[in-house]
Amino acid sequence: MTASVSTSDTGTATDAAGTAAGAPAARLVERHRPTLDRALEAIRTREFWSPHPEHPKAYGENGSLSPQEGRAAFDAVRGTRLDPGSQPGTLEWVATELSPYGLEMGIEYPRPDPDVLLPAMLAGVPSWRAAGPEARAAVCLEVLARISARTHEFAHAVMHTSGQAFTMAFQAGGPHAQDRGMEAVAYAYAEQVRTPDAADWTKPQGKRDPLRLDKRFTAVGRGLSLLIGCNTFPTWNGYPGFFASLATGNPVLVKPHPRAVLPLALTVRIAREVLAEEGFSPDLVALAAERDGEGIAKELAVRPEVRIIDYTGSTAFGDWLETHARQARVFTEKAGVNTVLIHSTDDYRGMLGNLAFSLSLYSGQMCTTPQNLLIPRDGISTDAGEKSFAEVVDDLGAAVGSLLGDDTRAHALLGAVVNSGVRERIESAPSLGEVALHTRELEHPEFPGATVRTPVIVKVDGTQSVTADGGADAEAERPEVPYLAEHFGPISFAVAVPSTADAVALLRRTVRERGAMTVAGYTTSPEVERQIEDACLDERAQLSLNLTGGVYVNQTAAFSDFHGSGGNPAANAALCDGAFVADRFRTVEVRRPA
Amino acid sequence: MTASVSTSDTGTATDAAGTAAGAPAARLVERHRPTLDRALEAIRTREFWSPHPEHPKAYGENGSLSPQEGRAAFDAVRGTRLDPGSQPGTLEWVATELSPYGLEMGIEYPRPDPDVLLPAMLAGVPSWRAAGPEARAAVCLEVLARISARTHEFAHAVMHTSGQAFTMAFQAGGPHAQDRGMEAVAYAYAEQVRTPDAADWTKPQGKRDPLRLDKRFTAVGRGLSLLIGCNTFPTWNGYPGFFASLATGNPVLVKPHPRAVLPLALTVRIAREVLAEEGFSPDLVALAAERDGEGIAKELAVRPEVRIIDYTGSTAFGDWLETHARQARVFTEKAGVNTVLIHSTDDYRGMLGNLAFSLSLYSGQMCTTPQNLLIPRDGISTDAGEKSFAEVVDDLGAAVGSLLGDDTRAHALLGAVVNSGVRERIESAPSLGEVALHTRELEHPEFPGATVRTPVIVKVDGTQSVTADGGADAEAERPEVPYLAEHFGPISFAVAVPSTADAVALLRRTVRERGAMTVAGYTTSPEVERQIEDACLDERAQLSLNLTGGVYVNQTAAFSDFHGSGGNPAANAALCDGAFVADRFRTVEVRRPA
Repeated sequence: MTASVSTSDTGTATDAAGTAAGAPAARLVERHRPTLDRALEAIRTREFWSPHPEHPKAYGENGSLSPQEGRAAFDAVRGTRLDPGSQPGTLEWVATELSPYGLEMGIEYPRPDPDVLLPAMLAGVPSWRAAGPEARAAVCLEVLARISARTHEFAHAVMHTSGQAFTMAFQAGGPHAQDRGMEAVAYAYAEQVRTPDAADWTKPQGKRDPLRLDKRFTAVGRGLSLLIGCNTFPTWNGYPGFFASLATGNPVLVKPHPRAVLPLALTVRIAREVLAEEGFSPDLVALAAERDGEGIAKELAVRPEVRIIDYTGSTAFGDWLETHARQARVFTEKAGVNTVLIHSTDDYRGMLGNLAFSLSLYSGQMCTTPQNLLIPRDGISTDAGEKSFAEVVDDLGAAVGSLLGDDTRAHALLGAVVNSGVRERIESAPSLGEVALHTRELEHPEFPGATVRTPVIVKVDGTQSVTADGGADAEAERPEVPYLAEHFGPISFAVAVPSTADAVALLRRTVRERGAMTVAGYTTSPEVERQIEDACLDERAQLSLNLTGGVYVNQTAAFSDFHGSGGNPAANAALCDGAFVADRFRTVEVRRPA
Repeated sequence: MTASVSTSDTGTATDAAGTAAGAPAARLVERHRPTLDRALEAIRTREFWSPHPEHPKAYGENGSLSPQEGRAAFDAVRGTRLDPGSQPGTLEWVATELSPYGLEMGIEYPRPDPDVLLPAMLAGVPSWRAAGPEARAAVCLEVLARISARTHEFAHAVMHTSGQAFTMAFQAGGPHAQDRGMEAVAYAYAEQVRTPDAADWTKPQGKRDPLRLDKRFTAVGRGLSLLIGCNTFPTWNGYPGFFASLATGNPVLVKPHPRAVLPLALTVRIAREVLAEEGFSPDLVALAAERDGEGIAKELAVRPEVRIIDYTGSTAFGDWLETHARQARVFTEKAGVNTVLIHSTDDYRGMLGNLAFSLSLYSGQMCTTPQNLLIPRDGISTDAGEKSFAEVVDDLGAAVGSLLGDDTRAHALLGAVVNSGVRERIESAPSLGEVALHTRELEHPEFPGATVRTPVIVKVDGTQSVTADGGADAEAERPEVPYLAEHFGPISFAVAVPSTADAVALLRRTVRERGAMTVAGYTTSPEVERQIEDACLDERAQLSLNLTGGVYVNQTAAFSDFHGSGGNPAANAALCDGAFVADRFRTVEVRRPA
């Protein structure tokens, strides 16, 4: 089993805080330094790289769990108490998960007393700080390596909390999430070592002796870091903040979504194991589960000990955090309205297939899923001839129907609807406009309890929103435009716009007012391409142009693509850049005469 | 004169936005790239470096103003209207400066209509963004070079707005401020080029063709940047934010303190000249003067266009900005209470002389001036024998008296009291405890209108504050401890503490609750040294140990020392580090099939 494999060669010589083989975490530094260097190179070149295999069959040897072992490990934890390892201050044990596939979970997690747990977490800080950036990075990479070895177990944990289909849960919840975690470790390391440990400062004084100072610089964490997890991507959205904060010297308290605890609880348990083995306090990482509906995030977020918060979720709570958790640096990913601007294409079939996939993947329950498809009402030019607005919409509906026509493939793409809110939005979509593609209900062959629905596309007239764009002063008088709100789930709008210029203006307005995690554009015109690019630069949105093959607008690759820009209302941070890590620690200088 | 010198070789071939000699600002890139590279090396090694001579006699050749020319330039601008160069939207011209030396200023500056000026500033953004990080850095370095050439003019401008003595106004307001500006340019450049302009992303797909994307990355400013200047160090505290924002693609609106407009107005005028010469919009930099007492900073700070704010000043307004300017990233330097912990020394005379200088420089009107001297009530060990608490305080008073005994030297060190608030604090200091050193009033030989006062030292018993340190819960019941508030000006407290451990505890409490820009310690004991260091690491304060020579706790050197830590209540940012620049821009990615 994993635990014995992953700890077999770290069982010796760790008898004091962080002093295995002399230097802190020396063995781990030796083991992971080449990977760290490769990750540092990747974020510099942003060329393709990943140390985590994407294919399920790549696992099962060298200590990693096979598909069968992963499934067995997942089944073994269900209906039990998952102890992250003797956390201080546990008040009670709570079980709140409901698999979107209807599988019985029944796993109990610790609900802590913050007055006991938080001081215990902070007590571990000095030796973690003293270990330095390289040792901290190595410990983080060891945590990631052990998570990677258990990717098959995590796949089931993510599947049965998020509702993702297995393959997606495996990839996005496994290697892609691990990539994002490692990327954050690389950024954190690079940021901390921009300043040297020491400097000999000698200032000439003309004929007099020079002034000389010995200067020492230490990266010091801000304080306790709180990770507020989300339901749909507990690891993918959680790992960047988790590892960025830990690698910069901060203890991390993980408060998962009550419906998606297991993937982060496993993460916490592994991190505590590695920390303890290396002579650090395991309490540097802890889990805070909560009763259903308790909302302890609000209580934790304003604790004076909490100096960093990472959050993915609703705009309402993200705004609340930014407003009230003033003692902390708050990194938020909130809601946005993602736009696709369709002007023209030289691969009509490829465009339709690519968009159909993007709309269907995980039932549109990604923060990056396109919502509004802006199409000139007079139609578009394509390699298959001129296509009217109605034809484009019909053809897109047909492409979705074709993609999901085979039930096996449909289930592999759609996964399950994560909660009743999404189901209700799908059902009420016809009230928003003329339905161009109706949703279809599927029965899951293995999990009859799963709610599975195909996407719905609604046709709307975009004239109103374009003409109503009268700048900030006109805001109060604007009519409500349904598609300018986020409709999280497999609901998209085919918006008929008077012209391409209007489409660009509506794109700008949407990003500026509502935010966007992604923008896509299709055009064969260099001039229109430039207009779309300018809009995205002006409003700070990430743009994908003319995707017709196997890359989709809703997917970003760690080490290369930025997830969000941090510069529009959808998110105040990007995954991952210098700004995501730089303010998680401060550099303290001690200077003395040399 | 300067203007002709500095523009003489840039008068050709600039006929379109940013396209001198083909590439944007190509000539400036060629001219300043070696300096940029040297600055980048300096922030990496943090060894001593400065391209800006500290000695007044180093100026007067190669196009720089001589002392006489600088004085003449300053005199020529007094009593006139200083036009930064046809700024749009000027409502009226206002004169609000009163030299602390009593010199007539009478300089009029533009008070703008934000509804006209701000859109004009934003209109220049696209070509500034398109110029790229290197061209923007080169433009910033040219601005700094022209400022440097006019250092003698700036010295008088800083002297007669801040009240600094001439030599200090020359050095801190000239080369040291220019160093801090250049340091910010270097950090901004380094941060932007961590991501390449473009990447060829090729992801293997087994036997199928690889996925290939062409990715372009552009650094895009957050939006309009507002600099709220301070009275005491208009250039030194203003340049880091000014240049960091400009170099990362943001327009910068400069709102100086009404009593210290000239140094920043000259800066704005020079920046507008350089921008225009290089084909960029001069409106990327603008000045917002205000009527006396108008307080337009509050109005400007919450404008939706303003996305970055740099502020140096009172804690009250800094807190107001952090609370209300939620649409902006706010960088603040507020008030702190700086501590010196005196345990023991092997150079008693050197320690006293060093501290006397630190207390006297610019009449203690530096955010870095020590305020509380914690001394064990049983005395300290020194190379001159055991010294009782009373002896240490008396000897320090004598050292100050000796340092300032000669009036010429006293004036060269003290400068003038900047405003009536400081004068009133000096006068009421005797109410705070037993006066160990009385203030002395000096008449300035050249400027009879100047208020010149020597420092006052007050003796207090620190037992109360130590025993009252009962943690956060005890806060409400704590008695008011006068020396735990900031007393800005030449007022310091000799605090008799029961023990060294109590001193360390009081140091911790002071930094945690009140913040500190600086901490100093004197000890010959490695154990006490470690305790002081741990306290500063835990509370994130910058520490100077055993300074007895020509380096003072209240001075930091750009490219090497951090000014503030950004990790305690005195400031939320440090000058200068990655966190100071990283969030001033976002990276926008455009990807398309390769």
